Amino acid sequence: MKRKDNWKKAFAPASIGNLTVGFDIIGMAIEQPGDIVHACFNNQKCVRVLSISGDGGKLPLPAHENTAGVAVLKLLEKLNTEQGIDLKIEKKMPLGSGMGSSAASAVAAVVAANALFENPLPKSELIDCTLAAEATAVGTAHGDNVFPSLLGGIVLIHTYNPLRIIQLPVPENLQYVLVHPHLELLTAYARSVVPKQVDLATAIAQNAHTATFVHALHTQDYNLLQQSMFDTLAEPHRKQFIPGYELIQKAALAKGAINCGISGAGPSMYALGKPTTNMQKIGEAIQAVWQRKGIGSEMYLGKVNTQGAHLLD
Amino acid sequence: MKRKDNWKKAFAPASIGNLTVGFDIIGMAIEQPGDIVHACFNNQKCVRVLSISGDGGKLPLPAHENTAGVAVLKLLEKLNTEQGIDLKIEKKMPLGSGMGSSAASAVAAVVAANALFENPLPKSELIDCTLAAEATAVGTAHGDNVFPSLLGGIVLIHTYNPLRIIQLPVPENLQYVLVHPHLELLTAYARSVVPKQVDLATAIAQNAHTATFVHALHTQDYNLLQQSMFDTLAEPHRKQFIPGYELIQKAALAKGAINCGISGAGPSMYALGKPTTNMQKIGEAIQAVWQRKGIGSEMYLGKVNTQGAHLLD
Repeated sequence: MKRKDNWKKAFAPASIGNLTVGFDIIGMAIEQPGDIVHACFNNQKCVRVLSISGDGGKLPLPAHENTAGVAVLKLLEKLNTEQGIDLKIEKKMPLGSGMGSSAASAVAAVVAANALFENPLPKSELIDCTLAAEATAVGTAHGDNVFPSLLGGIVLIHTYNPLRIIQLPVPENLQYVLVHPHLELLTAYARSVVPKQVDLATAIAQNAHTATFVHALHTQDYNLLQQSMFDTLAEPHRKQFIPGYELIQKAALAKGAINCGISGAGPSMYALGKPTTNMQKIGEAIQAVWQRKGIGSEMYLGKVNTQGAHLLD
Repeated sequence: MKRKDNWKKAFAPASIGNLTVGFDIIGMAIEQPGDIVHACFNNQKCVRVLSISGDGGKLPLPAHENTAGVAVLKLLEKLNTEQGIDLKIEKKMPLGSGMGSSAASAVAAVVAANALFENPLPKSELIDCTLAAEATAVGTAHGDNVFPSLLGGIVLIHTYNPLRIIQLPVPENLQYVLVHPHLELLTAYARSVVPKQVDLATAIAQNAHTATFVHALHTQDYNLLQQSMFDTLAEPHRKQFIPGYELIQKAALAKGAINCGISGAGPSMYALGKPTTNMQKIGEAIQAVWQRKGIGSEMYLGKVNTQGAHLLD
C-alpha cells in the first residue's frame, strides 16, 4: 500500500484547565508547549502506538489504554471503518502537570488521523472522540483541556448533555506564563479533595466571579479580569498541595500579573498578563519561590493559542 | 420657608430579581409598573412619610420602618445634614409580588430627595442608601432589585465588599411580560426554602448557565439566551409555591417566549421575548393557567427599562 508511507503530523497545544474562575467549565489553550502526534495508515485493521518519546517510559503503548489511541479508535468507530492506523507520539510536556498533557496527545492524534482520511470531520465533530480519550486518562470525561486544545482560545463548556461549547473572546495579546515544578500530582487525587457539597454563598460568589469574568473578556477590561479571577470551589482545597502557593501569588502580582492561580489540578501555576507586561520576570519570580524550597521548574510563556490543534507541514 | 412647597417627584421601575439564571446576583429593570415618590423639605428635622396610596394600608408610616423612609434617612446621614424631609408614596405595584416593590419605593424616594438638594450625589453614590433600605424591607441587604431599579437595564452584582456592580448589555428591543397572581408570598419565607448547601455539580451547572447567559447578552444571541436561562439553585425549591408552574412555563414557551421563570422570590412569573414576539399572547397564556385555578392576575408588558429611576416633570 503506497499510502502507508504517508505520515500526517499534528500539533496540539497545552491548556490551562479551570482558568481559576471556571472550575470544570473553562479552559484556555496556550502557545507552548504542545504535543506532536504522527499518524499513518497500516494494514493491520487495528490502532497501534509504535513509539512514545518524552514520557520517560511512563505512558502505556496499548492503544485502548493510551489517550491518543483511544481518541483514534473512537474516530474510526465514528467513520465506521476497519482501516488500521499507526501512531507515533512526541510528548513535549510533563505528565501530571496540570497542563492538559493527556488532552494534547489525544487531540493531536485525532487531528492527524482525521487528516489521513482527508478531513471528513470538522473539528466540531472530533470533540467527542477527544472527550472519550480524556475519560480514559483521568477517569472522568472533563473537557476543559481537550476542547481548548482542539479549538484554541478560551473555551466555556455550557452543557455536556447536549454538548454545548462556546468560544469566548480573547483580549488581544493577552499573555501567560506557566511554571511547572518538578512535582507530580495525580489529577484524580487533586479532584478528590474538592468537597462535593458547597455553601450556597460560596456557589453564588463563584457564579458572580465567572459572570464578571465573561463580561471582562467581552469588554477587554483588564481591571475587571483581575477583580474576577478567583475560585471559591477548588483552589482553596488544592492549594495545600502547592508548596509556596501564597508566596507565588504574591510574587507574581508584585511583578504586574493580572492573576496567579493553579493550572488545571496543579501543580503548575500560571499567571496572565497585559500585552505590555514582562511575563519573563513574573515567571522568574515564581521559579525563585520554588528554587528556595529546592524545587526545580520549567517556565513556558507566550500568548493565548487561538488557532487550536493543527497539522504541521 | 419658601422651598417647603417645592415637591420633587421621582419614578422608579419594578424589577425582575434573579432573572432566573442569576440567583441573588442579577436583576433587570422593566418599563412598567413602577412606584412614584414625592419629596419635599420640612422644618421638623426628621423624615416623615405623610401618605401612602396603593398599598391597602399595609405599609408602615414610621420612617425608620418604611423602606422609602430608611433610604432617605440614610441619604441625609450621608449628606451630613439635619434637614427634614416629607415623603408621599404612590405604590403602583402589588406588595410581596416578586417585582421589587420595596426596592422601587426606596429608589424613587432617594432620587426625589437627592433632587431636593440639587443632586449632590450621582446615582452610583445613592446605591448604598437603597441597599440599607432593602435590608429593612426583606431582612437581608440584597441588591438584585434596588440596583436595576436605580440604574436601569440588566445589572450584575459582582461583590458586596467592596460593592462592585456591572451593567450588562441589553439586547435591543428585548421584551418582557410579567404576570402577578393574586397570591402573596413573603420574600423571607421564599428565601428560607432555598437549601444552604448545594451539590458541587449543581453549583457548576449554575455557573455554566450564568457565564453563557452573559456571553449571550454580549452577542445578542437569543438561542443562547434560551439555552442558558435556567436556575439550579432556587427555582427548583420555590416552584412548589407557584400553582401551575410547569403548565405556565409550557404555555409561555409554546407561544414563543425565550424563557419563563419566577420573578424574584415569586409568586409573579415572567417571560422574555424577541423584538418580534407577541408578548400579550404569552401573558394571556400565563393568565389562562391561573384563571383555570380560580386565581386572578394582572399582566405588565414592555421593554427593558434602560434608564432606571428618574425625576418626573
